[in-house]
Amino acid sequence: MAYELYYWPMIQGRGEFVRLALAEAGADYVDVARRSKNGMQAMSKLMETKRLAVPPFAPPFLKFGNQIIGHTANILLFLGTRHGLAPKAEAARLQLHGLQLTITDFVSEIHDTHHPLGPTLYYEEQRAAAKRRTDEFWKQRVPKYLGYFEDILKRSDGPYALGRRLSYVDLSLFQLVEGLRYAFPKRMKRFEKAIPRVLDVRDRVAERPRIKAYLASDKRIAFNEYGIFRRYKALDR
Amino acid sequence: MAYELYYWPMIQGRGEFVRLALAEAGADYVDVARRSKNGMQAMSKLMETKRLAVPPFAPPFLKFGNQIIGHTANILLFLGTRHGLAPKAEAARLQLHGLQLTITDFVSEIHDTHHPLGPTLYYEEQRAAAKRRTDEFWKQRVPKYLGYFEDILKRSDGPYALGRRLSYVDLSLFQLVEGLRYAFPKRMKRFEKAIPRVLDVRDRVAERPRIKAYLASDKRIAFNEYGIFRRYKALDR
Repeated sequence: MAYELYYWPMIQGRGEFVRLALAEAGADYVDVARRSKNGMQAMSKLMETKRLAVPPFAPPFLKFGNQIIGHTANILLFLGTRHGLAPKAEAARLQLHGLQLTITDFVSEIHDTHHPLGPTLYYEEQRAAAKRRTDEFWKQRVPKYLGYFEDILKRSDGPYALGRRLSYVDLSLFQLVEGLRYAFPKRMKRFEKAIPRVLDVRDRVAERPRIKAYLASDKRIAFNEYGIFRRYKALDR
Repeated sequence: MAYELYYWPMIQGRGEFVRLALAEAGADYVDVARRSKNGMQAMSKLMETKRLAVPPFAPPFLKFGNQIIGHTANILLFLGTRHGLAPKAEAARLQLHGLQLTITDFVSEIHDTHHPLGPTLYYEEQRAAAKRRTDEFWKQRVPKYLGYFEDILKRSDGPYALGRRLSYVDLSLFQLVEGLRYAFPKRMKRFEKAIPRVLDVRDRVAERPRIKAYLASDKRIAFNEYGIFRRYKALDR
């Protein structure tokens, strides 16, 4: 039975963390909203159906048989043990999930750099606030978050977050580096020397055969100014 | 063996969602940083120790034997099945966890009403932005989030989110109502008629004997202007 991933078809966004895990797992899945013109309709229909006791709050969500799992980190928790991208023991699984939830918080703060006044206003309505938030973000938050993962990699003795075996958190670290390089090329270039181990994970992930094939395929949507990582010149100095 | 909860001693904050679950469970736990003057030191020490492979990113975290679990929703996932506050079947557990992750996102947006330019600046440095964000928050986000939970309660046929049995999500809904009433008394009063089922959950939770005892005890810290829910007159109209 194939997984059905439901996510916005034009952006990487939060769904990309799931797409990378599905790619690395070699899992059979349908990216429903990208599959056809009816895909978006199918997604809306599932969100609005009266038949589900617990409809998803927002994309991404994953459908597997009758089960619908919402929230990126929750989907990865589900997929991780099924596809060898997470340890099997409960304590270690929750530990890895905790790391992913830290990434979730970071992703939310990345989004807020261009939307400090909220997700319901356009960037163009909040340029000044975005500048201030982005300055604080690079001064305080990027060092805190990425410094934390650099430290985790140091403690694990690498190359990956939990040691010798790749997990979905490593795939997400790849995506964070790619996204920050896209959105803030100047700032990120200056910062990178502080996180050699995170960059090493990025490079190793990029070279994994299934990821490499995924990135070269049209399954990988290009970064653009509608997702989490947006390149606005005014925010990159 | 008692649980050890590590969280800031002067605020409800994110830790309160865990404290409520521990209270309802009747679990034996120590609120480490509140226990004594050395509690804060113990918390810092654990966060900075070199001995852990994966130190927590931030409070709250829960220690149980050698296991340390970070992030509110992750702690509730762990406690839920152990104390009958979550279903045992994996699919239902992940579904409930997904609901809690939606609450996590809402809590983050509540915090951003007074800190739109980031957590590293004082409210006093971002009053104007806070006003704009709070207006959008009440116009768009509160109806979206609380409307979603009202709908979940309607679908479950109540009285609780998953039906007849209380779960940790219901405890969190109680806390959301209490917090919004504290921080935005005028706005919340006008909004409440839209969410009768959520308010009913709030009332039922408040009457549960262990929660009632907890709320009346000095374990319940009063709301104040250092936590998630802050009462700033300028933000409540």
